[in-house]
Amino acid sequence: MFFHKQELQFQATPDQPDAVYGRKLQEVLGGQYGEITVAMQYMFQGWNMHVPGKYRDLVFGIGSEEFGHVEMLATMIAQLLEKAPLGVTEDAVQADPTVAAVVGGTDVQHAIVAGAGARPVDSMGNPWQGNYVTASGNLLADFTSNANAEMQGRTQVSRLYHMTDDAGVRELLSFLLARDTMHQNQWLAAAAELREQGTEELPVPSNFPQNSEHTPVSYQYQNFSDGDAASDGPWASGPKPDGNGTFSYHDGPTTSAPMPPPTHPDARLYGTTNVPDAVEKAAGTAQDKLRRE
Amino acid sequence: MFFHKQELQFQATPDQPDAVYGRKLQEVLGGQYGEITVAMQYMFQGWNMHVPGKYRDLVFGIGSEEFGHVEMLATMIAQLLEKAPLGVTEDAVQADPTVAAVVGGTDVQHAIVAGAGARPVDSMGNPWQGNYVTASGNLLADFTSNANAEMQGRTQVSRLYHMTDDAGVRELLSFLLARDTMHQNQWLAAAAELREQGTEELPVPSNFPQNSEHTPVSYQYQNFSDGDAASDGPWASGPKPDGNGTFSYHDGPTTSAPMPPPTHPDARLYGTTNVPDAVEKAAGTAQDKLRRE
Amino acid sequence: MFFHKQELQFQATPDQPDAVYGRKLQEVLGGQYGEITVAMQYMFQGWNMHVPGKYRDLVFGIGSEEFGHVEMLATMIAQLLEKAPLGVTEDAVQADPTVAAVVGGTDVQHAIVAGAGARPVDSMGNPWQGNYVTASGNLLADFTSNANAEMQGRTQVSRLYHMTDDAGVRELLSFLLARDTMHQNQWLAAAAELREQGTEELPVPSNFPQNSEHTPVSYQYQNFSDGDAASDGPWASGPKPDGNGTFSYHDGPTTSAPMPPPTHPDARLYGTTNVPDAVEKAAGTAQDKLRRE
Amino acid sequence: MFFHKQELQFQATPDQPDAVYGRKLQEVLGGQYGEITVAMQYMFQGWNMHVPGKYRDLVFGIGSEEFGHVEMLATMIAQLLEKAPLGVTEDAVQADPTVAAVVGGTDVQHAIVAGAGARPVDSMGNPWQGNYVTASGNLLADFTSNANAEMQGRTQVSRLYHMTDDAGVRELLSFLLARDTMHQNQWLAAAAELREQGTEELPVPSNFPQNSEHTPVSYQYQNFSDGDAASDGPWASGPKPDGNGTFSYHDGPTTSAPMPPPTHPDARLYGTTNVPDAVEKAAGTAQDKLRRE
Amino acid sequence: MFFHKQELQFQATPDQPDAVYGRKLQEVLGGQYGEITVAMQYMFQGWNMHVPGKYRDLVFGIGSEEFGHVEMLATMIAQLLEKAPLGVTEDAVQADPTVAAVVGGTDVQHAIVAGAGARPVDSMGNPWQGNYVTASGNLLADFTSNANAEMQGRTQVSRLYHMTDDAGVRELLSFLLARDTMHQNQWLAAAAELREQGTEELPVPSNFPQNSEHTPVSYQYQNFSDGDAASDGPWASGPKPDGNGTFSYHDGPTTSAPMPPPTHPDARLYGTTNVPDAVEKAAGTAQDKLRRE
Amino acid sequence: MFFHKQELQFQATPDQPDAVYGRKLQEVLGGQYGEITVAMQYMFQGWNMHVPGKYRDLVFGIGSEEFGHVEMLATMIAQLLEKAPLGVTEDAVQADPTVAAVVGGTDVQHAIVAGAGARPVDSMGNPWQGNYVTASGNLLADFTSNANAEMQGRTQVSRLYHMTDDAGVRELLSFLLARDTMHQNQWLAAAAELREQGTEELPVPSNFPQNSEHTPVSYQYQNFSDGDAASDGPWASGPKPDGNGTFSYHDGPTTSAPMPPPTHPDARLYGTTNVPDAVEKAAGTAQDKLRRE
Repeated sequence: MFFHKQELQFQATPDQPDAVYGRKLQEVLGGQYGEITVAMQYMFQGWNMHVPGKYRDLVFGIGSEEFGHVEMLATMIAQLLEKAPLGVTEDAVQADPTVAAVVGGTDVQHAIVAGAGARPVDSMGNPWQGNYVTASGNLLADFTSNANAEMQGRTQVSRLYHMTDDAGVRELLSFLLARDTMHQNQWLAAAAELREQGTEELPVPSNFPQNSEHTPVSYQYQNFSDGDAASDGPWASGPKPDGNGTFSYHDGPTTSAPMPPPTHPDARLYGTTNVPDAVEKAAGTAQDKLRRE
Repeated sequence: MFFHKQELQFQATPDQPDAVYGRKLQEVLGGQYGEITVAMQYMFQGWNMHVPGKYRDLVFGIGSEEFGHVEMLATMIAQLLEKAPLGVTEDAVQADPTVAAVVGGTDVQHAIVAGAGARPVDSMGNPWQGNYVTASGNLLADFTSNANAEMQGRTQVSRLYHMTDDAGVRELLSFLLARDTMHQNQWLAAAAELREQGTEELPVPSNFPQNSEHTPVSYQYQNFSDGDAASDGPWASGPKPDGNGTFSYHDGPTTSAPMPPPTHPDARLYGTTNVPDAVEKAAGTAQDKLRRE
Repeated sequence: MFFHKQELQFQATPDQPDAVYGRKLQEVLGGQYGEITVAMQYMFQGWNMHVPGKYRDLVFGIGSEEFGHVEMLATMIAQLLEKAPLGVTEDAVQADPTVAAVVGGTDVQHAIVAGAGARPVDSMGNPWQGNYVTASGNLLADFTSNANAEMQGRTQVSRLYHMTDDAGVRELLSFLLARDTMHQNQWLAAAAELREQGTEELPVPSNFPQNSEHTPVSYQYQNFSDGDAASDGPWASGPKPDGNGTFSYHDGPTTSAPMPPPTHPDARLYGTTNVPDAVEKAAGTAQDKLRRE
Repeated sequence: MFFHKQELQFQATPDQPDAVYGRKLQEVLGGQYGEITVAMQYMFQGWNMHVPGKYRDLVFGIGSEEFGHVEMLATMIAQLLEKAPLGVTEDAVQADPTVAAVVGGTDVQHAIVAGAGARPVDSMGNPWQGNYVTASGNLLADFTSNANAEMQGRTQVSRLYHMTDDAGVRELLSFLLARDTMHQNQWLAAAAELREQGTEELPVPSNFPQNSEHTPVSYQYQNFSDGDAASDGPWASGPKPDGNGTFSYHDGPTTSAPMPPPTHPDARLYGTTNVPDAVEKAAGTAQDKLRRE
Repeated sequence: MFFHKQELQFQATPDQPDAVYGRKLQEVLGGQYGEITVAMQYMFQGWNMHVPGKYRDLVFGIGSEEFGHVEMLATMIAQLLEKAPLGVTEDAVQADPTVAAVVGGTDVQHAIVAGAGARPVDSMGNPWQGNYVTASGNLLADFTSNANAEMQGRTQVSRLYHMTDDAGVRELLSFLLARDTMHQNQWLAAAAELREQGTEELPVPSNFPQNSEHTPVSYQYQNFSDGDAASDGPWASGPKPDGNGTFSYHDGPTTSAPMPPPTHPDARLYGTTNVPDAVEKAAGTAQDKLRRE
Repeated sequence: MFFHKQELQFQATPDQPDAVYGRKLQEVLGGQYGEITVAMQYMFQGWNMHVPGKYRDLVFGIGSEEFGHVEMLATMIAQLLEKAPLGVTEDAVQADPTVAAVVGGTDVQHAIVAGAGARPVDSMGNPWQGNYVTASGNLLADFTSNANAEMQGRTQVSRLYHMTDDAGVRELLSFLLARDTMHQNQWLAAAAELREQGTEELPVPSNFPQNSEHTPVSYQYQNFSDGDAASDGPWASGPKPDGNGTFSYHDGPTTSAPMPPPTHPDARLYGTTNVPDAVEKAAGTAQDKLRRE
């Protein structure tokens, strides 16, 4: 169960409205790596988790905080939109090109659809989607996904920080940056613990019997591009992070197989084939069958 | 430039057709973590990269291989679909419930739309989408994203491995598993090198001036759920992976702020307000304006 | 069957082109509550309806009109786009910032894709989607959905009215506003008749045996937020609109249940579990099985 | 802020696993009218609201409960999926057609992607989308939208009730049905209060100056289909619900206007025109311009 | 304006219900090449057309018919769904595997969402989308698109014809096949006339000054795959259909250019660069700026 | 297999950065008819093809080139974005309206998400989708689709050509225009050969037994709009392109059928019916059944 308290985790008030910036801020609310994504992702990981105890407590603990971040951003955006001009095109252009420029940079659905309110969309107006969420049940994979989400998210907030001079907005961003710092560290610490305890190992999933994979190519960097420098890195020689052998480098593939011949599905699918007799026969049969009915 | 060779990297022929399995295999072709995603993701990371040399060679080298994996899976799926029955419902149900069951489990667009061919969609028929791709320009974030993609992908292939007994299919999967093993290791090795060299550090992005974030909360695990066990982990006490201090644990938030008052945008957006005078006045103005025209 | 007449229901010609406004007008053509939605929604309600006669006549009668509204808006938008500058960026910016501002505010696909024509998309360029349509077969639910669609639509047109001074555009909007007024009233009148006749009642669906619902909580407002004022309304005390009892108010839930223990699906799905023995065993079995093949 | 408690609002445990039913239940978790929609919709209405006090408390109070419903359904679905067979096609079909049938009816991403877990998608596997959310800022419109959402949702739960015999599932559904009953009543009561207080009236938005709409057609039912019975209802004669006059009935439109002539945008958009001279001239100019460069 | 007549263009009644087939038939109602697509596509081409007269009459004349095809299919699907079992999983599986098989093959939203009604979606449940529509304003391109749509559509209907034995369904399909035959021919005839009259020519758009294209490669087939047979066709030698020269064949590219060096955008976007000094300086500046505020 | 060479097919460097134009150029990279579409479309046609030899060599040969076009455009866009201002709104507006105008016209995700890099999206920010791809297995239909794609693509590039004065950009566009010219011609030549050889004929699919279609309407132009000029064209009289008879013209339909009566699905779907007795009975049964449990 979720209980809502009508307080924010941190102050979320801009010094002044700025509808163009309000549109940009939508990215970290409703984008691929926005707060809705991490809130939903961590909660779904908890609901699907196969182990009780501390890992489930962890994803629930952070996931619930993230819903509060959704709230801070939505509240901030509504305030950024507060004084947005309605944007009569001709007026704006003739009287004041800067107003026209502002109108051009806004999310016009903020005004037309939401009446100066935030929306669960990204900064280009694409609706948030459930397939942004990753919750596979494998904790090492999922915590890596979480670390990535916090890295991408913090990178986006950093960029947004430099796109405004508004002290109120920047204060909220400085708070979100700190929380992203914390959460990046937490997911990496949790992933490391999984490996240290042997709960999960590399390669993920570690329980899959590795002798069932085609092991000769499990160590080979096959470079399908012509960039030689690719051989000069810890991914091309030396020990593998999973502890199972040593990288080797190869220009191009080490295996190949002929392309299988084209398929010949049922002629009544009317794909083009080079066996016209068969097509006619099948079609004939179909025709015969129809006539019998 | 890309050059295509009409050979496969590995054999991709099933022992027998199996249209239901062909639909399942679409997940690792056209799903969120399928081969189209990693192929596109690595290439876009290369095209957007700000550094020449080995990192760009690396993403191009692996990305190009992944397009070959798309090819192997598409070829395999076309063969799995080769003998799919057309699926006349009544016939199937009356004559042979097992055929009916097969029909129920297929991607019906495989037959109706593609004429027994593979499609750029996932196993539930959702089209592949460009927003599955992550290419932020920050290599530590992106290589973490790549490691996650290979982990999720290998987990899915592992599951698919147990959903068939077909030796031909399993051979291809064993090859893909091995390549995923390799690529997981490569991205982790590359991410580690970035940190060792100091090119990128934690938290991502490491160049953002950390004194601009609200540092008091950069160390605090604020648990917004009531699971106590969350305090018992390396994410709640001890040193942080980024080397910047020690985790601390807190039940709930350590900060709070009052919700800002509701916004009052332009009355001509016709949101509900509790200042009806103002609304009427604004509406009146609009009306007056209209009359003047 | 539909018959098309090359006349419009009302004049739809702007006084002057305005490509920025043309983009905004896309919202009520191809947005969530645009004319395509209501046209499709009412027709699908008719095609799926289980009763002949007046209700079906009603949805067909209004739905067909709405296709004519799609036409008026598409025609209007094409004219608004007629003189859109091609928008050479450098020229525009250097020579005339107002032209640059205009370009910034347009739907660039209007020019690049449609050659100065309307498109079945909303004002942020998102394509219209079939899942905007509601047609459940339950007329009380669906007529409420229709009333909502007309309310949201009229609100959006009202906002758009104030975003232009063009008398020609405003004339068309004044017509659409009037039709939305009419249709709002019609759906509410039709919904009221359903209830008066006892064809449908509250709660929807009224035929579901209400003693099969967990009636103790059918009357309780359980407030999961900490806003006390929520108790001060006709939704928290007094008779319920459906005539089945009286509202009561409660701070938080009146029931609770422990979270069920984590699930333990097939180990070959490789989720993380805390019973490593079982995992190994299952994996071992799978390996054994593979070896036998 | 949101605080999470690791208890459910009601018991959510099936008597037995049923993966096919687990897929169906996704509709009311992640569908157009599922619990994610209402949770997000009510919260966004609160964050965007322009009035403090009881209405905001109301949407927050119910919205937060709905997140708990998301949790109950996700938990239930994970348990329904617990014993899902991996679904080796050949085995299943040969050994046991009923198992094959089950496999055909499942969401295969439940196994392949989520490892037997719930996902933020609907029953056909479409990801949840932010554009399911309605939050316009106009409370009469939005509460009508909320009433519709609860009606559609309760209808869907009623249907799902009859698609299972599992007593545990039915208990949860009976709880959700009761809450939907409550919430339907609450939104209708709140909408009624808005009208009684004169805060909002019909037609929505009531503050828009109605003399700016083309009033002659605000009262006319123009029937664009040939169903005569449409004239026999309270939507075709008698007083309008908004109190502004009386309905009248008309076969077809009462107004018409000629189609405006085709548009002639910039020739360099290369649309087909019937003035080839102009096209050539414009193209020539472009060519000349290029040559000068 | 559109006028609706409550008659169908052709009979659309199945001999018996068949919910699995009803789902398949959704493809030609709401799929990429379904009737909604062609109806919308032709009408949008008309609304955007730059020439009056016969071409506009043609797209309006056929487009309006296609809305009637949407209607026939929706009506047919509703009837196919009429006796769909509710599908209690356990019952079905235990009592009758064939019923279970049927349930597995249906669109479960047909029952849960639409109450046994048609929906604007394709056969895998993906909602119809506005971006299926092509209306560029260039008639030769658009009529080619129309011919393609009718070809794809007729191919899909042909396949669907063999997936049922129901005489009623087949009668409707035989009608749709005939209309697709007609419309394929019409669009090809219209495209041919455009070329014969010189209104449009190849390559599309023909008015673009061809000396502005890089003509040396306008005649070269550059084969980027290693299939030699590609040189043996009328696309590799002989005259080009547009009359402008002769095809020539080349193994691989005839031109090449070095990759441009990596870009160096603003350091405050925090992409990884190999000039760490600059990054620090820029970040420092940002920090300084912040301190000054 | 695909091999990547770190050279471009043609130079792709702008004279100067232009972030607004970079956004526009996304259309031909990631739009409906962008290079990702044609690359994927031709390759999928190859992987699904049922005939070996020259046609498969052809689609592979061109498809692989198109991936190189994706690369040139992505590289170009990254360079166009190189100097994009971060776009602090207030600064921009106050100091320099032209900068503000530029910001308004950009894809803000280019900066926030990609750090000044290209993305697999169109010019309005919609992600590329797998359902843009057409690969039906019928070569005459698919080559017509390919011709259309090249026509639409070349039209879009032509328009984009006039939206910039940058010589570097124009050079790349002139190359792409030439390749589109070539590919249009190739697909038309290949389609013509299919017909000349009798491999495929009109109407597509030509193997479907035409006496199974309702032939009386295979020749009739039924005009559902009131535009008389539609009778004046080679689509309304004279021989049909498929050689099977002569067109005839008809105002409106030549056939009609009564609408079938409304359907009566299972009462437990709770659609509105006019047989309340049945509903109650069914509901009663359900209730009884529940009580027994």
